[in-house]
Amino acid sequence: MTSSEKILHADIVIHDAMVLTMDKERRFIKRGSVAIVGDEIADVGDADWIAARYRARRTIDGQNKILMPGLINVHTHAPMTIYRGVADDIPLKEWLYDHIFPLEAKFSSNPENLKAGMRLAIAEMLLSGTTMFKDMYYFTDQLGAVVAETGMRAMLSEALFDNATPSNGGGEKTLQYIDAAIRNWKDHPLVQQAVAAHATYTVSPEFIVKAKDLARRHDTMFSVHLSENQWEVDTIREMYGATPVKHLERLHVLDRQTLAIHCVMLSDEDVDILAETSTGVAHSPQCNMKLANGAAPVPELLRRGVHVGVGTDGVASNNDLDMFDEIRTMSLLHKLSSNSTTVVSAKEAVEMATIIGAKAIGYDDKIGSLEKGKKADLILINVDKPHSKPLYNVYSSLVYSLRSSDVDTVIVNGDVLVEQRQLLKMDLSGVYEDIERIAHDISAFL
Amino acid sequence: MTSSEKILHADIVIHDAMVLTMDKERRFIKRGSVAIVGDEIADVGDADWIAARYRARRTIDGQNKILMPGLINVHTHAPMTIYRGVADDIPLKEWLYDHIFPLEAKFSSNPENLKAGMRLAIAEMLLSGTTMFKDMYYFTDQLGAVVAETGMRAMLSEALFDNATPSNGGGEKTLQYIDAAIRNWKDHPLVQQAVAAHATYTVSPEFIVKAKDLARRHDTMFSVHLSENQWEVDTIREMYGATPVKHLERLHVLDRQTLAIHCVMLSDEDVDILAETSTGVAHSPQCNMKLANGAAPVPELLRRGVHVGVGTDGVASNNDLDMFDEIRTMSLLHKLSSNSTTVVSAKEAVEMATIIGAKAIGYDDKIGSLEKGKKADLILINVDKPHSKPLYNVYSSLVYSLRSSDVDTVIVNGDVLVEQRQLLKMDLSGVYEDIERIAHDISAFL
Repeated sequence: MTSSEKILHADIVIHDAMVLTMDKERRFIKRGSVAIVGDEIADVGDADWIAARYRARRTIDGQNKILMPGLINVHTHAPMTIYRGVADDIPLKEWLYDHIFPLEAKFSSNPENLKAGMRLAIAEMLLSGTTMFKDMYYFTDQLGAVVAETGMRAMLSEALFDNATPSNGGGEKTLQYIDAAIRNWKDHPLVQQAVAAHATYTVSPEFIVKAKDLARRHDTMFSVHLSENQWEVDTIREMYGATPVKHLERLHVLDRQTLAIHCVMLSDEDVDILAETSTGVAHSPQCNMKLANGAAPVPELLRRGVHVGVGTDGVASNNDLDMFDEIRTMSLLHKLSSNSTTVVSAKEAVEMATIIGAKAIGYDDKIGSLEKGKKADLILINVDKPHSKPLYNVYSSLVYSLRSSDVDTVIVNGDVLVEQRQLLKMDLSGVYEDIERIAHDISAFL
Repeated sequence: MTSSEKILHADIVIHDAMVLTMDKERRFIKRGSVAIVGDEIADVGDADWIAARYRARRTIDGQNKILMPGLINVHTHAPMTIYRGVADDIPLKEWLYDHIFPLEAKFSSNPENLKAGMRLAIAEMLLSGTTMFKDMYYFTDQLGAVVAETGMRAMLSEALFDNATPSNGGGEKTLQYIDAAIRNWKDHPLVQQAVAAHATYTVSPEFIVKAKDLARRHDTMFSVHLSENQWEVDTIREMYGATPVKHLERLHVLDRQTLAIHCVMLSDEDVDILAETSTGVAHSPQCNMKLANGAAPVPELLRRGVHVGVGTDGVASNNDLDMFDEIRTMSLLHKLSSNSTTVVSAKEAVEMATIIGAKAIGYDDKIGSLEKGKKADLILINVDKPHSKPLYNVYSSLVYSLRSSDVDTVIVNGDVLVEQRQLLKMDLSGVYEDIERIAHDISAFL
């Protein structure tokens, strides 16, 4: 620094960490710092340089910690934490029709239950290093307030079905609800409402097109479960004479503002379509495995430049919201299914959980990397435990050795929400009380 | 309790936990206690009954915790923690011949390096709920002292090759080393030495038979890497005109005192042979996936009554020693590979990590369940975090939601080794110093 450069003010400086920027050059700064002003990253650089340049209102010690962008979970049904582990290891149809659907009809129709489930989900996500999630469920307009109160960042999508849902009447009525929700939350710094159609077998072409039109009018994301398993492909072929992907291409709803969730069963033409339309993909490896749906062709999608983000899906089929766990399983799964030790490398897995995930949901102008001008969403990870030593390669460590429980500090939008593994702004005992009460009722219903 | 029953003494009572016994009836006692006298479990039962019957020198509060047998890791190369993450995401042969073998020639030939690696491994295992591991590596006679000093339980096997190894001359010389090691550690309460032949492609039939004879003479386990991948099957077919399993059957070395490690590529006849000979199997799902070797036919082996335990393998190919992580991945993997949501259920996964694992290594008379007369190896697991709520089913929670970082207390042989997630008997800073020094040398060599 020359003497003519003036000292700048920062609200927070995270000093002397191993900074994994995930910027275009994927810079890894062994002794780096990040300066935060308000809700934004003001600077990223060498620790000494930042120390000389910034006077910080608050300094957080980053020594022996990895500092990186917060993880982005691109597919959740967050309020379903109330159903965690309620029915496992049973056939898919029995699971869905005898357990999940009856439970949802009974308990998901009460928004208070979903608020409690959402609070629990956000606590779990923050403590495990996730700073942004893209959710599809019910009562999203009401749930926005829960997200806002916690300080978490989220994109919420009310699930559209042709038929009535636990939250509203389906079809036009749901579209009206979504339209109002988007308007209500417009320009909120943390919460964005977007549009989701549940799936091609539950939403008619007419309403899929109307939903995408609504998303276009509001310049927001449209998402849809797509090609999750062979049954779906067979069903859509029978109904519309095309694969689910081709069916949506014909409806002109695939573009870079669409997120296709799952994409397990893809033909070569489907891959071409997703690549050519720049459609984003949400990949949920653990759920795909647990429900025996298959291994999505992720290495091929990545080769074709498709933005594949990572989502845990709901905890009724996972059963956690742990992105560390998810990307480790993902990296192992594709090595097995591709019969190659080199695919979905640790570096690619970290990219998918950060910057590529941000691109998949159209948020990479705001988050996904540590760069000047982006929102200050970042996490500090301890590397001081036996399982994290030695550390030869930061990507290898993050994917194959480190765990969600190593996350020490979590900052969202410039706000410190987790410090030394403790939630600073949430009353966990109140959350637990609500959850225990709801779980008691659910147990009685089982 | 009637007044005539006398009050008994216990060294430790773990009071009022959710006790998962893993005994024959798989009893789950919602408010249970375990009394420990010396190195043994003296009683398991209802919390009030134990409280009335025992006066404890020390009481550990089990409220809101799951109490279960310590996890058994049936296949490790524990000292290889010094190579954690040193080479990932590269082709198998390059990984082995250009990285692992040269590193081992240089650094595994110094027993001091392996002692440091072993200490780090034991710290990691204890903190993640493992109370017993079966290891195959070098300098096992010297390493026994490291295990003993930590209070961990282990069965160590010096790896026999025809050729010289980093530790000794191979063939007869290694057999002599093993024979001496077994004698040196005979009757030690924690450490047992056993016999291992590395694999059918590195050990000639002559030495495989001699190794098994040595194991028989000492009434101890014989273990061998077996049918890990297609290359091995092809190689052994070419060398001996049989599958690796059939080859060993012809050598008469398969029986209930033999542990076959991996068993990924099995013919129907191979499965028959393993079942009929009561050979134990060590299953390492994460390593099999990471090295793209395949999915072992575990559901079929379990159906046939084969004792399949779970092992993490060495951290150069995993990259951790985390049994929670391992059994979750295992359960998901086999659902995918069998195209069935019901196989390798959460309950089976917990069985494999405890009582079935104990059977696989011939230790089920001593460990693997909480039963009167067995060794006091047990773990207490917190269920007070967002990701562990609600708790509808203890097996589901253990496998699909709980994490190694939830392990709070670890007792081995009646000795409290971990309390509130802290190691009580190990000097971690000294371990880290050694590891950093070795890792520095390894980095310079890369």
